Amino acid sequence: MSELTKIIERIRDFNEARDWRQFHNPKDMALSLVLEAAEVMEHFQWKNAEEMAEHLKNKKEEVGDELADVLYWVLHMSDEFGIDILDALDKKMIKNEAKYPVEKARGSNKKYTEHQV
Amino acid sequence: MSELTKIIERIRDFNEARDWRQFHNPKDMALSLVLEAAEVMEHFQWKNAEEMAEHLKNKKEEVGDELADVLYWVLHMSDEFGIDILDALDKKMIKNEAKYPVEKARGSNKKYTEHQV
Amino acid sequence: MSELTKIIERIRDFNEARDWRQFHNPKDMALSLVLEAAEVMEHFQWKNAEEMAEHLKNKKEEVGDELADVLYWVLHMSDEFGIDILDALDKKMIKNEAKYPVEKARGSNKKYTEHQV
Amino acid sequence: MSELTKIIERIRDFNEARDWRQFHNPKDMALSLVLEAAEVMEHFQWKNAEEMAEHLKNKKEEVGDELADVLYWVLHMSDEFGIDILDALDKKMIKNEAKYPVEKARGSNKKYTEHQV
Repeated sequence: MSELTKIIERIRDFNEARDWRQFHNPKDMALSLVLEAAEVMEHFQWKNAEEMAEHLKNKKEEVGDELADVLYWVLHMSDEFGIDILDALDKKMIKNEAKYPVEKARGSNKKYTEHQV
Repeated sequence: MSELTKIIERIRDFNEARDWRQFHNPKDMALSLVLEAAEVMEHFQWKNAEEMAEHLKNKKEEVGDELADVLYWVLHMSDEFGIDILDALDKKMIKNEAKYPVEKARGSNKKYTEHQV
Repeated sequence: MSELTKIIERIRDFNEARDWRQFHNPKDMALSLVLEAAEVMEHFQWKNAEEMAEHLKNKKEEVGDELADVLYWVLHMSDEFGIDILDALDKKMIKNEAKYPVEKARGSNKKYTEHQV
Repeated sequence: MSELTKIIERIRDFNEARDWRQFHNPKDMALSLVLEAAEVMEHFQWKNAEEMAEHLKNKKEEVGDELADVLYWVLHMSDEFGIDILDALDKKMIKNEAKYPVEKARGSNKKYTEHQV
């Protein structure tokens, strides 16, 4: 069993053991996803490049903690919805690799600002 | 190499080949994370339980696509920041398993609403 | 002077007196807008219709406080950007009144779910 | 009648005429608030100070349009919840003026970064 499958099962067991899946409607789970993403973002507010680098040095664990919260909801939601998330990301990468050919996209700010992964 | 390590490396290669890492400051990446999470949430707006179930049946691929966008940024940001995201999630799970003991948390809405993963 | 003009001037004076406008770049202000909106949303997470009504009865002041934070940033940003926000909202209302004619839109969930103010 | 009262009544009439208030539960309205705030934020993503200034020159109307969307939901939600939003903002300003005395807060980045309106 892969490490990702293992963590998805662990999240599922965690929620089943607590009988929490009954509360997990898609809308409220999506709210969690947004709220946790907002907590990641808050780490970088009102900071310039230097201050962000400094912050990432001093608070790497806290930032990792918030990113893990987002990952938790991505994996839990995917599992609840019957979505193979690695497969979905794989397809996304194939699409983006075709959409942004290296020779055209290379170092281009213009291409970049239009770039929506 | 694990499947997750493989996809992280693929994301890194994708961005390096296009020389895009120069644009990837933490703040703007965090904006992407929030904006992609918001797109997931948008799928469930103005829908009741039945309509969400119906939507997940008909638009599973689209929802998976948006969740993959969120996962992309979680993995890319973690990699850029030197964060071992699976390890971070692992620690989070251990903490939550201790914080919400099964016998106390089981099926409790009250415990649940206080529950912040 | 209208009440809204008065509060916009008060916000401007507040920031000028503290010499804070130097920190107010558009991106970070927009982050504030999103983060404050997220705090409003958090009030309703994991709650059904009854629980939300109950919450609004007991925590009306707190919810008003969060909505005021969002309004603060809307007014402050508009002022900084030289935008006449009441005029912008006025135009928006005219557009929506034309886009959703009463006879067609009336009570329609279908029209509604497509409705993007 | 003040201009703000007038626009609040206009929003109320707009929704009543279309019988849309039935769809306006607090949670989904709060989602709208967040989603519209996210659209404001998107205008500034991947842009540096110069590019943002340029953008605000060229796309002022579009930015004003998005800010008006946020204002729409602030006013509509406040009205639905029975909240006097100008009064709430007034109290907030009084609190902040006391919390950040001019002589201490003046031009201070440190004070600023701790500043949560």
